[in-house]
Amino acid sequence: MSDYRVEKDFLGEIKIPQETWYGIQTIRGVGASQATGNTFSSHGMELIKAIAQIKIAEARTNCQLGALSEKMAKAIEDAGLEILRGEHDDMFPVDILTGGGGISIHMNVNEVIANRATAILGEKVHPNTHVNMGQSTNDVLPAAMLIMVNRMLNDLADEADETAKVIAEKSQELADVVKLGRTCLQDAVPMSLGQQIGGWAANVSRQAQVCREAAAECLQLPLGATAIGTGSGTHAGYEEIVFEELSQITGLKVSQCDDLFDGLQNADHYLRFSAAFKSLAAAYSKISRDLRFMSSGPRGGIGEITIPSVLPGSSIMPGKINPTVPELMIQIYFIVAGNDVAVSMAAEQGELELNVWEAVMIKSFLENYRMLKTSVGLFRDCVAGIKANEDECLRQAENSIALAAIVSAKLGYEVGSQVAHKAIDDNMSVKEAAVALGILTKDEADELLDVKKLY
Amino acid sequence: MSDYRVEKDFLGEIKIPQETWYGIQTIRGVGASQATGNTFSSHGMELIKAIAQIKIAEARTNCQLGALSEKMAKAIEDAGLEILRGEHDDMFPVDILTGGGGISIHMNVNEVIANRATAILGEKVHPNTHVNMGQSTNDVLPAAMLIMVNRMLNDLADEADETAKVIAEKSQELADVVKLGRTCLQDAVPMSLGQQIGGWAANVSRQAQVCREAAAECLQLPLGATAIGTGSGTHAGYEEIVFEELSQITGLKVSQCDDLFDGLQNADHYLRFSAAFKSLAAAYSKISRDLRFMSSGPRGGIGEITIPSVLPGSSIMPGKINPTVPELMIQIYFIVAGNDVAVSMAAEQGELELNVWEAVMIKSFLENYRMLKTSVGLFRDCVAGIKANEDECLRQAENSIALAAIVSAKLGYEVGSQVAHKAIDDNMSVKEAAVALGILTKDEADELLDVKKLY
Amino acid sequence: MSDYRVEKDFLGEIKIPQETWYGIQTIRGVGASQATGNTFSSHGMELIKAIAQIKIAEARTNCQLGALSEKMAKAIEDAGLEILRGEHDDMFPVDILTGGGGISIHMNVNEVIANRATAILGEKVHPNTHVNMGQSTNDVLPAAMLIMVNRMLNDLADEADETAKVIAEKSQELADVVKLGRTCLQDAVPMSLGQQIGGWAANVSRQAQVCREAAAECLQLPLGATAIGTGSGTHAGYEEIVFEELSQITGLKVSQCDDLFDGLQNADHYLRFSAAFKSLAAAYSKISRDLRFMSSGPRGGIGEITIPSVLPGSSIMPGKINPTVPELMIQIYFIVAGNDVAVSMAAEQGELELNVWEAVMIKSFLENYRMLKTSVGLFRDCVAGIKANEDECLRQAENSIALAAIVSAKLGYEVGSQVAHKAIDDNMSVKEAAVALGILTKDEADELLDVKKLY
Amino acid sequence: MSDYRVEKDFLGEIKIPQETWYGIQTIRGVGASQATGNTFSSHGMELIKAIAQIKIAEARTNCQLGALSEKMAKAIEDAGLEILRGEHDDMFPVDILTGGGGISIHMNVNEVIANRATAILGEKVHPNTHVNMGQSTNDVLPAAMLIMVNRMLNDLADEADETAKVIAEKSQELADVVKLGRTCLQDAVPMSLGQQIGGWAANVSRQAQVCREAAAECLQLPLGATAIGTGSGTHAGYEEIVFEELSQITGLKVSQCDDLFDGLQNADHYLRFSAAFKSLAAAYSKISRDLRFMSSGPRGGIGEITIPSVLPGSSIMPGKINPTVPELMIQIYFIVAGNDVAVSMAAEQGELELNVWEAVMIKSFLENYRMLKTSVGLFRDCVAGIKANEDECLRQAENSIALAAIVSAKLGYEVGSQVAHKAIDDNMSVKEAAVALGILTKDEADELLDVKKLY
Repeated sequence: MSDYRVEKDFLGEIKIPQETWYGIQTIRGVGASQATGNTFSSHGMELIKAIAQIKIAEARTNCQLGALSEKMAKAIEDAGLEILRGEHDDMFPVDILTGGGGISIHMNVNEVIANRATAILGEKVHPNTHVNMGQSTNDVLPAAMLIMVNRMLNDLADEADETAKVIAEKSQELADVVKLGRTCLQDAVPMSLGQQIGGWAANVSRQAQVCREAAAECLQLPLGATAIGTGSGTHAGYEEIVFEELSQITGLKVSQCDDLFDGLQNADHYLRFSAAFKSLAAAYSKISRDLRFMSSGPRGGIGEITIPSVLPGSSIMPGKINPTVPELMIQIYFIVAGNDVAVSMAAEQGELELNVWEAVMIKSFLENYRMLKTSVGLFRDCVAGIKANEDECLRQAENSIALAAIVSAKLGYEVGSQVAHKAIDDNMSVKEAAVALGILTKDEADELLDVKKLY
Repeated sequence: MSDYRVEKDFLGEIKIPQETWYGIQTIRGVGASQATGNTFSSHGMELIKAIAQIKIAEARTNCQLGALSEKMAKAIEDAGLEILRGEHDDMFPVDILTGGGGISIHMNVNEVIANRATAILGEKVHPNTHVNMGQSTNDVLPAAMLIMVNRMLNDLADEADETAKVIAEKSQELADVVKLGRTCLQDAVPMSLGQQIGGWAANVSRQAQVCREAAAECLQLPLGATAIGTGSGTHAGYEEIVFEELSQITGLKVSQCDDLFDGLQNADHYLRFSAAFKSLAAAYSKISRDLRFMSSGPRGGIGEITIPSVLPGSSIMPGKINPTVPELMIQIYFIVAGNDVAVSMAAEQGELELNVWEAVMIKSFLENYRMLKTSVGLFRDCVAGIKANEDECLRQAENSIALAAIVSAKLGYEVGSQVAHKAIDDNMSVKEAAVALGILTKDEADELLDVKKLY
Repeated sequence: MSDYRVEKDFLGEIKIPQETWYGIQTIRGVGASQATGNTFSSHGMELIKAIAQIKIAEARTNCQLGALSEKMAKAIEDAGLEILRGEHDDMFPVDILTGGGGISIHMNVNEVIANRATAILGEKVHPNTHVNMGQSTNDVLPAAMLIMVNRMLNDLADEADETAKVIAEKSQELADVVKLGRTCLQDAVPMSLGQQIGGWAANVSRQAQVCREAAAECLQLPLGATAIGTGSGTHAGYEEIVFEELSQITGLKVSQCDDLFDGLQNADHYLRFSAAFKSLAAAYSKISRDLRFMSSGPRGGIGEITIPSVLPGSSIMPGKINPTVPELMIQIYFIVAGNDVAVSMAAEQGELELNVWEAVMIKSFLENYRMLKTSVGLFRDCVAGIKANEDECLRQAENSIALAAIVSAKLGYEVGSQVAHKAIDDNMSVKEAAVALGILTKDEADELLDVKKLY
Repeated sequence: MSDYRVEKDFLGEIKIPQETWYGIQTIRGVGASQATGNTFSSHGMELIKAIAQIKIAEARTNCQLGALSEKMAKAIEDAGLEILRGEHDDMFPVDILTGGGGISIHMNVNEVIANRATAILGEKVHPNTHVNMGQSTNDVLPAAMLIMVNRMLNDLADEADETAKVIAEKSQELADVVKLGRTCLQDAVPMSLGQQIGGWAANVSRQAQVCREAAAECLQLPLGATAIGTGSGTHAGYEEIVFEELSQITGLKVSQCDDLFDGLQNADHYLRFSAAFKSLAAAYSKISRDLRFMSSGPRGGIGEITIPSVLPGSSIMPGKINPTVPELMIQIYFIVAGNDVAVSMAAEQGELELNVWEAVMIKSFLENYRMLKTSVGLFRDCVAGIKANEDECLRQAENSIALAAIVSAKLGYEVGSQVAHKAIDDNMSVKEAAVALGILTKDEADELLDVKKLY
């Protein structure tokens, strides 16, 4: 008995080990790209599982329409469920970056399902004729990508909400630590640490909403367009059934997009999804920049706060600790923003009936998702571990020249200016300068310029 | 009598020509950047006018709060109205790209209003003490930018709607021109020209919505935050009045943003506005790419359509006509996408209490808006002028190997494959191949493969 | 007997399985990022091996300077050689994207070498005191990165040379196939297919040079700078020895950069390396775009050439073949260009004594290199397999309106224009129009407008 | 007598005011784009002048080849010289961003020269037949762009050299100011301010070289390629003459590029030019980041240095001064890097015989050049005006925990670690900790840890 089976397609035959559930077109796909070295098996079953869900919905639909026998539909569904349960995670060797409009990804799923269904049923199930009945890579892949992105963005939104909560708690905790406000890195009027951190929380909280709004744009699918939007190859009554089945399987309220030609031609929504990833990453990055600046030191920096130590920060300087996690988050932004450019090139260059650069979106979104998902917990721990150096914060706040703005608000800009000048020239505090100039009495100055009342 | 007046600020004195309404800080601002050579006077009064509207609302508010005399408030309002009427368009010489957190832009407006108000009132109106009472560049500028962006995006949305209408009409007109569908630039199944163009219309129409949704995000303003979010310098009761006044003057339903610290700290919304510009530009660009491809030729290209001639296309080849307008639109995308990267750098790098890179957004958005606004009419004319080469379209559709998909849908993928092979090998049409192979009778083939019934 | 050993560092203790050669700081590093899911073990030993080479050179140097015992230096060298031989490829679990200035990558190597050297020697070799003697992550990592980039770019240059050779051969082969030239996708004057393809070869050949020039910029290393450029911790006489040893081990003519402070502060060379990757990718992409356009069809496209089939191009349309490899190359460009933006963010934002965003360069360059390296063979095969459709090429060339330029060159632009007009209006060839207008005799026209003589 | 003349072209007739030297195609060009609102007249005669120089060289060449009469060649040259002398700076109303492969720019020059030559000569000089004899936009424009870029980059290189000199002088001046080194914003070992600033000088100095090397790549021109590289329309012997003439007129040693097809097809050199602009901008930006950080304060920041005040930094906080010029330079980087993305899109997407997206390069490079050129003087003044706060610098240096690295280098990492721990835990200096632990005597510590000897 042979250990190999032979599969053939339009271009010829290939011998395939019996225990391999994928088939000839998958093997050709692997031959046609190992560009990133990352496969769906190694780097992200999200898309594969979304395709498998579509395959199940399609089988059920074609069965109800009388185009597929009940037992074959059942076998296809069973095979699809095996994929969903993670039983074939090692059977998707296609690189996440491929040419040819994503055909290899799609055929990989068609083949695994067909071969598994054949084994389950004991009767030939054809990857194209049966598993792919009335479907095209051109409508299945974008539909699956939308489902994938929906899940990614909603998941990241949940993480953002959790993160915002942690930040908000820290804001509460530090609500009364007075510190110096700064713009352009220059001393400004006083505020509280809680206020500053509250602004971070508001930002992250907004990103949850941004991600959810983008995710909501993922629910109108071009399924039923088949090759170019005309629906060539589908069976009558298809749309009425398939979206209900798919909604049931995915748990998402999916429906058909209004214009199927538009649905295949245009990839502008990827620009917006990518912008949502970027906007989220920017929030973490902005906060991380503040964390680095505020925790700089410990002796020769700003030293307003300390953040948790994660690892030793030098191979040569014992005791040095770097803001490792903030630096990770900032770098994630750089990469997400770089990916956004790749997406900006790919999404605009669709031509005629299809945007065939979907692999760029797949690669970029898998990467964005993974980076943000695996790092957000570290980031939360970092924020949760902030400790304020209250004395230093207060000292800086009281010392600020910008307190002259308070004088200015009361007595006009020219008087404020005069006080500021005096404070700078004679190296005094604004309070001292105002008194020295006879503009305020000591008591008035103590009252007016009490930084604990100025936030 | 001297032709000069002398103004002074914190850094010293400057002589200024009497007829000049701006003042010392504007002049310092001009000295500190001529980076782009584009000033607000030359390139965009949108922002200046939004600031002027804020100044009027502030004057009214401070007057109602008893902080500013009625006559001074009136003089400030009158000066502001002069700016709105375009009477001082030549008085804003500050470069659209400056450092220092936009202070020069803001002071330019404060000074023009102060000097005009002084002239109107016959009494000194101070740019900081009076015109800028209870305000900071840090809250006024972002607020004005949001008003500016709101107007830009809504205006571009209106243009997109008008454009979608023109495209939809063209789609109607060409609803029955059968042509070849193409994916990966390879022949696919047939469709109609109207269907393809309908996909364009749907895309552009969606962009109108994208722009409007982004514009709606511009109505929560950080006004009242002053320098860092604490509202230091505003008068009690300020918020209750200023947003009503500003809504009345601008005609927009503006209100205060929820967290004023967030409002100054974070510039993530610029990422989304920039993405909206990009998404719109991508729609025009994608269609432009199709126009170029489809009108390629006239003899040695695809030749499905012709588009209007705009200018001779060669200095050496008489009779050559290039797709000039589509090429303009594509290049506009490149620049908008490049600007998005500049914005992506600037928006994320806000630090502590403020994002001080607003000039990058201002420069980018003024440029995006101008490019898209001045070119969209040309683009509409181009689409409106499309003429179909119907015979050529039909010839290509009938000739397509991909018609084998129709056989495949009826008789299975393997049979479809066989027919495709035959058609390729013997250089026949799919119809001929199906008959030659005895798979279909001539009549069946004529019926099944009638491209006029396949879209 | 315990299966664990205990290691401790500044932050505490961790139990580590005995068979694990890396140590506590590596484990902390793994805990501090799994951002990309790609580790040096899985995705690129290039950097690790360059660090190992530096470690060997350092051990030899410190030994010669009397700072390290001979047997310990030998043990370190032996351990380093094991890494170079690939014996510990599974011992580098640090993610290729980390924060903290790359410390985890560096300590991973220090630890594997220290633990292996300890085992070899039977005496404690300390990762910091001995393996890292007189070194800092801040000088070792950039030095190793330069060595890595040098090898990558030189390797890609060799591939480009090989590719240019294949293209040049194809250019030779098709030297006499006359075809239509096109600009702006519009018909221009005739040329040969060989000429066009020769332009591709020149481009790719130039990229080899671009890569080599960039690679040459990698040979001045900041080794010896240690933490910030002052060389704190190195032993007297260090520079005289270490670069000779390193040159010997690496086979590269490396030397110390002129200004060690500059060497750590500035990462501008990464911008240029990234541009070299991008320039190379652009060459492959540009050619790929031409391949797609020229092979479009097979029936309803340009159809000048056919390229080899790699995989079936549709799950629904049998017989459809897509330009899979060209589409891969184009997408690689998108990603390389996106990576360039990430690098552009990272390289500029170095601050003070160090650019700590090196992980972004490492991730980007590993990815660029892998994508280009694994795909270039496919690309070569694609070009090598080009077949010209000579009849179609000739037909298009003879039909071009732009042949009026030949008339124009002889008889002035106005006459050329007249002929072009006639040809367009009456749907004739330029030859026919010139004769019909009495501008040329039939013989003159046949002579002047013979496309086979016009290239 | 009419105030208008009538011109006609392939598409029809237009009435043109007599005093207007440009003609019908320029007017069409203006109608086909006002995208940026920036014209060559308003924003950059660099390109126009390079084209005019080519026109002069061509006229001389065609005259020597007997194709153009001597008096006509003379008239063309005279008209070209008028442009070079700046006499027609207001006659180039074409937008710097246009579609159609730059034809409008080129015809604008052809027309101004033709109409001026006609006036000079008193006899019709035709813009296409005579001024454009044997030339095409497709070879003239890229050639002129190369000349333009060469001048821009060489000029910016001179500015960079001058800037490096100013920085190096400042480095000298501050050679003995001891300060804290920092990596990851965390305290490291000591260094001198002069050392740090010396690193800046080395960087800027390298950029001069980078720009000059890129500029040197601009001297091989595709002139003579005409429309597609075949040289169709040139006269025999052309190449031998034209490059000599052009070298003479431009003062540059220009020659013909090796492969004329390559010369038109490929725009990869623009990627490298753009990278050179970016690399230069990154140097100024990196230094600017340091300036902002180091001058942060004045009271609650790092406060190592002060930089010159350029303008008041707040409308509400008197006395606040922002790092205006550094912030300008950083923003210029953002825009140059954004432009690089636009160029990255445009340069790769050339198709077939020509890259028709040159307008994107023109727009980007004009902008890059202007921004960098007009701001570099401000930047130099900023660096020249740096003042060190020596006491503060010394205080920070002596206080650093990282001095434990010195102990470590002498006594091993474990001992260094112990000292660092003690210093942190008991809030002492490293010196005090080493003594307290009995590791060093007071004298040894004073000797070993004297920061004035550690750089």
